[in-house]
Amino acid sequence: MDLKPTKPLSGFIELLPVQQRCFDECANRIQKVLKTAGFSHLGLPAIERAEVLTDKDNWDEITTQMYLFQKGDTKMGLRYDGTVGLARYVAGHKNDIVFPFRAYQFARNYRAERRQRGRFREFYQIDLDILGQNDLSINYDAEIVAVLSNAYKSLEKYIGPATVKVGYRKFWNAMFEMCGLNPEQSRAAFILIDKKDKLDDFAAVLSDEIGVENSNVINQVFTNGYKSFVNQNDKLDLAISELDDFVESLDAMGIKNVEIDMGIMRGHAYYTGIVFEFFLEQHPDLGAVGGGGRYDDLASKFSNTKIVGVGAAMGFSRLMVTLLQDDKIDLAEFETPIDAAVLIMGEGAKNYAVSVLSKLRNENIAAVPYLDTNKKFKNQIEFADKINTKFSVIIGEDEVNNKTVSLKNMSTGNQETLSIDAMIKTILGK
Amino acid sequence: MDLKPTKPLSGFIELLPVQQRCFDECANRIQKVLKTAGFSHLGLPAIERAEVLTDKDNWDEITTQMYLFQKGDTKMGLRYDGTVGLARYVAGHKNDIVFPFRAYQFARNYRAERRQRGRFREFYQIDLDILGQNDLSINYDAEIVAVLSNAYKSLEKYIGPATVKVGYRKFWNAMFEMCGLNPEQSRAAFILIDKKDKLDDFAAVLSDEIGVENSNVINQVFTNGYKSFVNQNDKLDLAISELDDFVESLDAMGIKNVEIDMGIMRGHAYYTGIVFEFFLEQHPDLGAVGGGGRYDDLASKFSNTKIVGVGAAMGFSRLMVTLLQDDKIDLAEFETPIDAAVLIMGEGAKNYAVSVLSKLRNENIAAVPYLDTNKKFKNQIEFADKINTKFSVIIGEDEVNNKTVSLKNMSTGNQETLSIDAMIKTILGK
Repeated sequence: MDLKPTKPLSGFIELLPVQQRCFDECANRIQKVLKTAGFSHLGLPAIERAEVLTDKDNWDEITTQMYLFQKGDTKMGLRYDGTVGLARYVAGHKNDIVFPFRAYQFARNYRAERRQRGRFREFYQIDLDILGQNDLSINYDAEIVAVLSNAYKSLEKYIGPATVKVGYRKFWNAMFEMCGLNPEQSRAAFILIDKKDKLDDFAAVLSDEIGVENSNVINQVFTNGYKSFVNQNDKLDLAISELDDFVESLDAMGIKNVEIDMGIMRGHAYYTGIVFEFFLEQHPDLGAVGGGGRYDDLASKFSNTKIVGVGAAMGFSRLMVTLLQDDKIDLAEFETPIDAAVLIMGEGAKNYAVSVLSKLRNENIAAVPYLDTNKKFKNQIEFADKINTKFSVIIGEDEVNNKTVSLKNMSTGNQETLSIDAMIKTILGK
Repeated sequence: MDLKPTKPLSGFIELLPVQQRCFDECANRIQKVLKTAGFSHLGLPAIERAEVLTDKDNWDEITTQMYLFQKGDTKMGLRYDGTVGLARYVAGHKNDIVFPFRAYQFARNYRAERRQRGRFREFYQIDLDILGQNDLSINYDAEIVAVLSNAYKSLEKYIGPATVKVGYRKFWNAMFEMCGLNPEQSRAAFILIDKKDKLDDFAAVLSDEIGVENSNVINQVFTNGYKSFVNQNDKLDLAISELDDFVESLDAMGIKNVEIDMGIMRGHAYYTGIVFEFFLEQHPDLGAVGGGGRYDDLASKFSNTKIVGVGAAMGFSRLMVTLLQDDKIDLAEFETPIDAAVLIMGEGAKNYAVSVLSKLRNENIAAVPYLDTNKKFKNQIEFADKINTKFSVIIGEDEVNNKTVSLKNMSTGNQETLSIDAMIKTILGK
């Protein structure tokens, strides 16, 4: 019989235990930051109705990157981001929750994308949002950037420092209005500014769309800075002062790694105010590792109640798995998850040995027994070596009779006979 | 425009934040037990190749409970349990991992089952396994029952005590051999014993299959106990002494809630030794909330290396979500995740207030600001009430000028003006 394949499908992630431990540690750190900032965890389904995931009427014709399927008469699919489920949930529970509502998701999402570095077909994304009914103070914009900044900071030991670049849609709206751009011109300008760094001659391309004079004005934002447009008109002044206030708030919260970069647009049409993207100083090749912004309509497809908010998403698998696969994270601390291997010299020592094992675990000492008690000491200590245990607890006839253990420190090689209490203290480093 | 549905698909789980906190706390407690027992977390893909999930050649005809779909030429589906992914992973990584290999999964699985209480189409299951290459000492059987028992014990506060019932396939094999049953009779007897409690007249039905004399012998196991068959032949004696040793080991590990029940069979054909099921004393209506056993062939479809093991699965959603939805868990401790609401009396106090917010969070105090600073005190304190915060930190002009805060204990109503350090100490209960 042919054997089945042992590799996962292309684009799906498989980590070794040591990598998984790092992944989990980082996930825990971020979630701790989010909980300390009062965000509720939402564990939403990965499968949604097709009509929830898409606006297309003709489901059969959808040739997107979604995983769609049918069971009985029900068309459904795997979620491709956290927003659609959040919108459905908040619309359905708007009377059960307190606004401003702060929620996060740490969830797998699915996109049948073409395979490329850092893109996975199944990936964890962390979504965090603060939502208001009808309105939400602009002050929350700085808070969410601060929270996400602290989330990255909690991983600094592994991924190095992060910086955040912030753009402001309202500033551009005021600029475009001042320039007298029509809607199509504004749209074209938005798209070009978003692609600015990828264009050889931004000014020239922009001139083609909005005229050379307007192009020159807009280019001044990048050459002279957005603050050079102060005292032009009320709308621009308001946008500039809101941005100043935003930066001051972040400063008051101790967030220093902030750069205003009017080139940050975020593609999504639904952003209406602040937009931001996070980058890693030591890993610029990863590009933006997270981002978000302010939006004015989360859930109008699900509810007549207007839900507005500010939110962010962190590409957690994109970040972590890429760095892990490229060996860019020092995994030393994750190599030794086992504190004690319990080695048992003969079946007669087993019951005493497993009672010692229980006592170790009751003290939150990670302990693994080698229960093939007939194996020679050599084989057992080899096992202890291979699992990188910090200590080996060796139990034979003498230890059973004296109610002791032989404790071997696996890094120094020192071995001593100890009472159970003394063993526990030694392992705990007390 | 018609609004889209806000309810999840039938059979899919949606929890409120307070329920989710309980769910997450229980998941964390169990995973801590598993890590302390040296189990590695495996985060395997939810999507596998169809050929990995199923043995059927004709994929189109599969009318099982699986979610199957196709992208391009690739047929794939959502995993329905943890075993198939584990088998694939271990076969693929057998040279990267150390045997005996202990691994757990805490993962979503998918089954398009008919809807009934406690059955979900997307559900979390915890799988734990200890695997050996070619062989694995029988001593690990008691250890895995002890670990799972401790996992349930870690939830005792929420779900009450659990007991485990243990059967032994090897005992029955020896019994059937002694009775001279042929393979079909043995198979029939296995199935009837498995269904024993659901049959009106077990003895009569069993007689029909294997004769009245054999039926009487087998019934003695349930009336006189399995130990009454000691000294009949070597195979039975070995099985009985192995079972005695198993119980003694568990006792040495402090696991007392164990009952040998030869009626426990577990349907799966692949179990070959110990089989066990866990039940909740306070929730017998849930039936078995977890179980497992010893198996001799995990991965022969993926590898020519023989992988044997002992494993267990815990129906985590089945357990937790059913109890949560039936209001069977006291959620009081999960009602107050917020330690401090920061209320801000006017925009002028904002930057000082958010600096206080940061200091709170730096001390791991869960803090939520109310950032619509123009709202009246009444509105702000209402918000603090609604989110069940333990304290409110109120900041206005005086507090800004004096670098203090007004701290209101929300349960006593007491309010006092404090320095920031004193506020932190009070909230932390120091």
